[in-house]
Amino acid sequence: MTVSRTVELEGHIIDSGTMQRCFEVIMDLGGDFDVEAFDVGHHKDEESYARLRVLAPDDAALQSIVHELHQSGVNPADPEDATLTPAPADRVVPAGFYSTTNHPTAVRVEGEWVEVADIEMDCAVVVEGVGEEGETTARTQVLNGIEADDLVVTGEAGIRVRPPDRPRDASGPFGFMRGGVSAERPSVSRIRTVAEALAEVKADGGNVLVVAGPAVIHSGAGDALARLVREGYVDALSAGNGFATHDVERGLYGTSLGMNIETLEHPRKGHKHHIYAISEIVRAGGIAEAVDDGIVTEGVMYECVANDVDVVLAGSIRDDGPLPDTITDTVEAQNEIRRQAHEADMVVMLSTLLHSVAVGNCLPSSTRVVCVDINPATVTQLLDRGSAQAVGLVTDVGTFVPTLADELLD
Amino acid sequence: MTVSRTVELEGHIIDSGTMQRCFEVIMDLGGDFDVEAFDVGHHKDEESYARLRVLAPDDAALQSIVHELHQSGVNPADPEDATLTPAPADRVVPAGFYSTTNHPTAVRVEGEWVEVADIEMDCAVVVEGVGEEGETTARTQVLNGIEADDLVVTGEAGIRVRPPDRPRDASGPFGFMRGGVSAERPSVSRIRTVAEALAEVKADGGNVLVVAGPAVIHSGAGDALARLVREGYVDALSAGNGFATHDVERGLYGTSLGMNIETLEHPRKGHKHHIYAISEIVRAGGIAEAVDDGIVTEGVMYECVANDVDVVLAGSIRDDGPLPDTITDTVEAQNEIRRQAHEADMVVMLSTLLHSVAVGNCLPSSTRVVCVDINPATVTQLLDRGSAQAVGLVTDVGTFVPTLADELLD
Amino acid sequence: MTVSRTVELEGHIIDSGTMQRCFEVIMDLGGDFDVEAFDVGHHKDEESYARLRVLAPDDAALQSIVHELHQSGVNPADPEDATLTPAPADRVVPAGFYSTTNHPTAVRVEGEWVEVADIEMDCAVVVEGVGEEGETTARTQVLNGIEADDLVVTGEAGIRVRPPDRPRDASGPFGFMRGGVSAERPSVSRIRTVAEALAEVKADGGNVLVVAGPAVIHSGAGDALARLVREGYVDALSAGNGFATHDVERGLYGTSLGMNIETLEHPRKGHKHHIYAISEIVRAGGIAEAVDDGIVTEGVMYECVANDVDVVLAGSIRDDGPLPDTITDTVEAQNEIRRQAHEADMVVMLSTLLHSVAVGNCLPSSTRVVCVDINPATVTQLLDRGSAQAVGLVTDVGTFVPTLADELLD
Amino acid sequence: MTVSRTVELEGHIIDSGTMQRCFEVIMDLGGDFDVEAFDVGHHKDEESYARLRVLAPDDAALQSIVHELHQSGVNPADPEDATLTPAPADRVVPAGFYSTTNHPTAVRVEGEWVEVADIEMDCAVVVEGVGEEGETTARTQVLNGIEADDLVVTGEAGIRVRPPDRPRDASGPFGFMRGGVSAERPSVSRIRTVAEALAEVKADGGNVLVVAGPAVIHSGAGDALARLVREGYVDALSAGNGFATHDVERGLYGTSLGMNIETLEHPRKGHKHHIYAISEIVRAGGIAEAVDDGIVTEGVMYECVANDVDVVLAGSIRDDGPLPDTITDTVEAQNEIRRQAHEADMVVMLSTLLHSVAVGNCLPSSTRVVCVDINPATVTQLLDRGSAQAVGLVTDVGTFVPTLADELLD
Repeated sequence: MTVSRTVELEGHIIDSGTMQRCFEVIMDLGGDFDVEAFDVGHHKDEESYARLRVLAPDDAALQSIVHELHQSGVNPADPEDATLTPAPADRVVPAGFYSTTNHPTAVRVEGEWVEVADIEMDCAVVVEGVGEEGETTARTQVLNGIEADDLVVTGEAGIRVRPPDRPRDASGPFGFMRGGVSAERPSVSRIRTVAEALAEVKADGGNVLVVAGPAVIHSGAGDALARLVREGYVDALSAGNGFATHDVERGLYGTSLGMNIETLEHPRKGHKHHIYAISEIVRAGGIAEAVDDGIVTEGVMYECVANDVDVVLAGSIRDDGPLPDTITDTVEAQNEIRRQAHEADMVVMLSTLLHSVAVGNCLPSSTRVVCVDINPATVTQLLDRGSAQAVGLVTDVGTFVPTLADELLD
Repeated sequence: MTVSRTVELEGHIIDSGTMQRCFEVIMDLGGDFDVEAFDVGHHKDEESYARLRVLAPDDAALQSIVHELHQSGVNPADPEDATLTPAPADRVVPAGFYSTTNHPTAVRVEGEWVEVADIEMDCAVVVEGVGEEGETTARTQVLNGIEADDLVVTGEAGIRVRPPDRPRDASGPFGFMRGGVSAERPSVSRIRTVAEALAEVKADGGNVLVVAGPAVIHSGAGDALARLVREGYVDALSAGNGFATHDVERGLYGTSLGMNIETLEHPRKGHKHHIYAISEIVRAGGIAEAVDDGIVTEGVMYECVANDVDVVLAGSIRDDGPLPDTITDTVEAQNEIRRQAHEADMVVMLSTLLHSVAVGNCLPSSTRVVCVDINPATVTQLLDRGSAQAVGLVTDVGTFVPTLADELLD
Repeated sequence: MTVSRTVELEGHIIDSGTMQRCFEVIMDLGGDFDVEAFDVGHHKDEESYARLRVLAPDDAALQSIVHELHQSGVNPADPEDATLTPAPADRVVPAGFYSTTNHPTAVRVEGEWVEVADIEMDCAVVVEGVGEEGETTARTQVLNGIEADDLVVTGEAGIRVRPPDRPRDASGPFGFMRGGVSAERPSVSRIRTVAEALAEVKADGGNVLVVAGPAVIHSGAGDALARLVREGYVDALSAGNGFATHDVERGLYGTSLGMNIETLEHPRKGHKHHIYAISEIVRAGGIAEAVDDGIVTEGVMYECVANDVDVVLAGSIRDDGPLPDTITDTVEAQNEIRRQAHEADMVVMLSTLLHSVAVGNCLPSSTRVVCVDINPATVTQLLDRGSAQAVGLVTDVGTFVPTLADELLD
Repeated sequence: MTVSRTVELEGHIIDSGTMQRCFEVIMDLGGDFDVEAFDVGHHKDEESYARLRVLAPDDAALQSIVHELHQSGVNPADPEDATLTPAPADRVVPAGFYSTTNHPTAVRVEGEWVEVADIEMDCAVVVEGVGEEGETTARTQVLNGIEADDLVVTGEAGIRVRPPDRPRDASGPFGFMRGGVSAERPSVSRIRTVAEALAEVKADGGNVLVVAGPAVIHSGAGDALARLVREGYVDALSAGNGFATHDVERGLYGTSLGMNIETLEHPRKGHKHHIYAISEIVRAGGIAEAVDDGIVTEGVMYECVANDVDVVLAGSIRDDGPLPDTITDTVEAQNEIRRQAHEADMVVMLSTLLHSVAVGNCLPSSTRVVCVDINPATVTQLLDRGSAQAVGLVTDVGTFVPTLADELLD
């Protein structure tokens, strides 16, 4: 062992498993370590601190270890500046570019730590203002938004990542997450806890983003969601062409996919209602226009228009129509979803894998997320993205939304 | 085509698909037919009648066709007597015994049609009183209940099966079934419809059997089910050792599988509570004794004892304990389940595949069945047993039971 | 009953249930009927014919009945010409436009039946050449492709639909479908049957379209699919950005989502490989360019380039990158998918709900479809679209594709 | 903090998360600690050792902490003798009895550590030979096997638990487990790894127990499993009445649940074959007798009889029949399953939740387990029982068993 470097861990490094991962990484990669300092936080809300000298047989091994530790939020105690390389062309990142995690990140530029704005996963970091007067800034940039000569962070030096702590205290509104995903959990108590978290976010002036799939309408939960919009619990809605179409169909014809949601009857011709609904909105020029014209008078989309909710309808290749409101270019739609994700303090994902993944891709790991689906595999997949604040409920969205609305509004 | 036989169809033979199956069977098996009469019921509640002359190239083919038609409730117009053969030994059926469907069935003995009592699937038919004074009777007999010299129906002659009609009218309480199993259906409206059907059965003095799995307790629905028992909506409960144990655990320690269902906390030692709960009941001598001793004072099992509900706890190889109340012999347990199934006018199956299949195996096709599970495959499997009156809900039992109780009791 | 109209049914109307649906529709909608003729096909491959006089209390009721019958392929015996109405503006269909089924359809123009080209579901029918010299033609048109003054079929007169027969013979390559979707079916025998059908289609010079999700690569089936491409069993590939990225990642780094598929190891940095793979392809300018440059030298995408397979990569909002080859506009992507769907004689859908639905939306009901997914709900959803030739296999794509390749190539 | 106790951790305490759980427990329960010694194993196969002084505000808190640490294998450095209390009556454990984990356990009796034989979860520990000449022994005892005056361990003193290490080395046959349960994993490579593990166990003279559900037969994997039995890869089979019945049905009639597994045809009367199969075996007196009589001549059960495989068929309330070989008393069946589980060195669970849970309940945490099911929730549930050596494959048993047999035998 001829080379070494000192790294630091701080935060709830025991509870969050950071320390364990740290030891594992070092030994898996053939290194060794001395524990130079280890201060354990004795109270639930106290943080811990550890300083380790990492030893490795050569520079390559040491670099690999330091890279891996970095991914888990273990940072060198003696940082260097980040390496900045100009992008060779539009959309082309320099070789060896640093690909982001979704954790809060800073880069070291000319000896100063600069926080990276709007962090999200699998992006590049672009630094601006280097060597100029005024502030040096760093921002997350998706690969297809890179422009020639952007200064992109490459390599692994001078980057500090800090995963959010998952505090030990299980009594907070999101404490119920421990124990993983399963349908065999007390549903009504858990929905009540989500209601409390949502009320808390709104009381703090926070922004709530709802991501909703067509199943919300088919399962009869549309009225309850419309009520939540009307009462101000929803600041933004991220959905697709199908959700909006079925919601409008329900307002126009009382059916969803051809079934009357109240009487459970299938009126003849019902199966064509969604195509007719689309052509009505196309004729009007859009949903807002159809609301103004008095064509659409109820439902989630109506309440969104009436209450100035920020709506993004993203297109997909399975869409009928689509509605004029639907953004058909997926890159453009991603940019709008990204904006919503960055503004959100809490995200409620309701029965849509596609849109939930799209939103989840843009979220920093610190945003609160509630994910509801009847399929446990969907919930697992959505939670499996490293958010420290995500909780999953395997339940029926058709009873979840009404129960949530009752808890909040009755 | 040298041989022929005339068969009759009556009932809602068009809606139920009987006529279509009839034509298919004849042609699949190389036969032909003439439609001798065809009277279509013109109103929704009128039955239809058809008489067909079936032609076949030889006796064997004709017999095959007639056998198959018989399974669908198409019976010969010129019946013979059933063949009765004595069982050669205890538990041994005669070769070629007639294996029952779950549809109402009659056998022809000495020129008279005798209704088969307690029909259920995959059993033998035993006839008693032949050639004696007094009434001739026929009953369904499970294979392991056959005794030497029982007169068992063999072959296919002299048996009349009549599948229950699935009436065209979709507006009745169970009309919502059409359209199959899916999570994407209006949940609250569908639960309301189940509540109406249940209230109707109770108003008519009917017997309601609830089949419940441990998930009812884990999901926090135990209180709502206990309330339904207390209010007289449950006449019988068919469950297993696990359901009873977790219900008792919840009463004794406030936990289910170690989680507090109200506070969502996991008290330390919680994971051993179910073993402690079993040993408490063993010490008392049984659940009723534990209720008498004031040890068990709340929960579903408590209410069942307090309200004289007919409880069957059937054992399984995955049981802990088991409780003294659990019937560990599976054949004996089946006999008790069979008795409950035959007494039931409506069966509500809540999140248990094993017990639901066991009950379903004993049900005639005319009993109303509601099957609730979060897993669509479970619901499909349970409905796929030929009951004309079965409906499935893919939803969360943890919100289903509370919503059902609210609909019935608030 | 004061009004009447005569309708005709032909084909395998008994086996396919058409006759049953016909009787149901008439009676559900308050009508009555006389059977004027009923010729039953006596052999498996003979068609049947029935002529019914439908009676109804008034014109509105009669029209409703005729509309509904029409959806099932029961057409008036005394047809009128179709009504043609000019579209009022681009993308705006005239009120009351006829929305298509996915069954072969003809429209009656000036007394002549004109076959509608490229039939697919939920579209409008546009007629061209009316009153002009030369041929009158009719084609399916998606709503957003309608141009002002297009002559669009409105109402329900003059349209003839003929659902493909589902022949009685269960011994053909696709006969194994009967009995629905379930994991509990003999897997290897069923895969062999798919192989036979695929070989038959290729022997007839048919076009095979494979629709593939990223799970094909993660599950280790990429090599087997690449082999099928190389050996000429695949004419077209419809997939997404994720599929292509993971396939390229596998070629470049030996990993898929960071796992080495052969050794099952997770090399450090593996989780960033897919982002690096994308940036390599962006740098090259596209997949074909990367193949030309010798960067991509193996895998499904490589074989598609090398063998001139028609590839469509459709974008979605969850894409990383995307690759330069990915069509990011969903309407444009749908048009390309539509083209592939119309050219295909057999479609094999492998573990992708999104792309399979998109392709399925464009398929006529007569195209052979095999749908493979480990999730029974996905298979059910894909089959539930009215294709007479669709079969579903609930199995593991990671063993399905290798077993299929072995059956075809060994 | 006025009271303290010193505890020790040894083994792969970092990789296995033991150290992290230890710190969490202490702080969650209001304690504190000093790290007195901490020796980290520097090589993959070296163990680590830590000694901590645990501090707590009072004796009760200290006891709670020590109890919890104990569950994770952290044991006091200064042990006392275990407390032994006579059972008050048959089947009744003394109050406060120690309920076992499934980890290797020892109890301290008269200053000596005595290994507890046949450890399994949720049982009592009975000590024999105390104060007598000869050896003192300890064994696991299920609650319903307790006899009056048995000396049962109560409280938490004098018990040492050691969870098996999950070694860091991912290259062993079971190293592929890391990363949890998902269908999106390379299937064929993973099956090959299972084959290697199985071959290794057999090469070492180990005992292989197969737990199989009826889906093995329905899915067409029966021949491959029969082949594995014939070739000596299966020492014991744990299944139910349904598995054996369908296997026999397949041998007698070529069908499983009425479908011919090779031709995929449903012969008429096929749906009654399983009842006929049962009555044939009943007539013969049992499966072995039916083999001797030449009635059963192929299949898994045939090979088990021919190769003296240890078969346990456990009854359940959903059984038809049952076969004479089926053990209908569930407690008796559990005892037989327990014997098989204790003899097994490797367990392969194939598509049966009920039987797999029953076997899993009796397994020590050190036995190798492979669990195969197409439903990810089943695999998760089975793995979620604390076995350090369990791996799950979400795949199709109908392709898994043939592929496994090919890997082992071709």
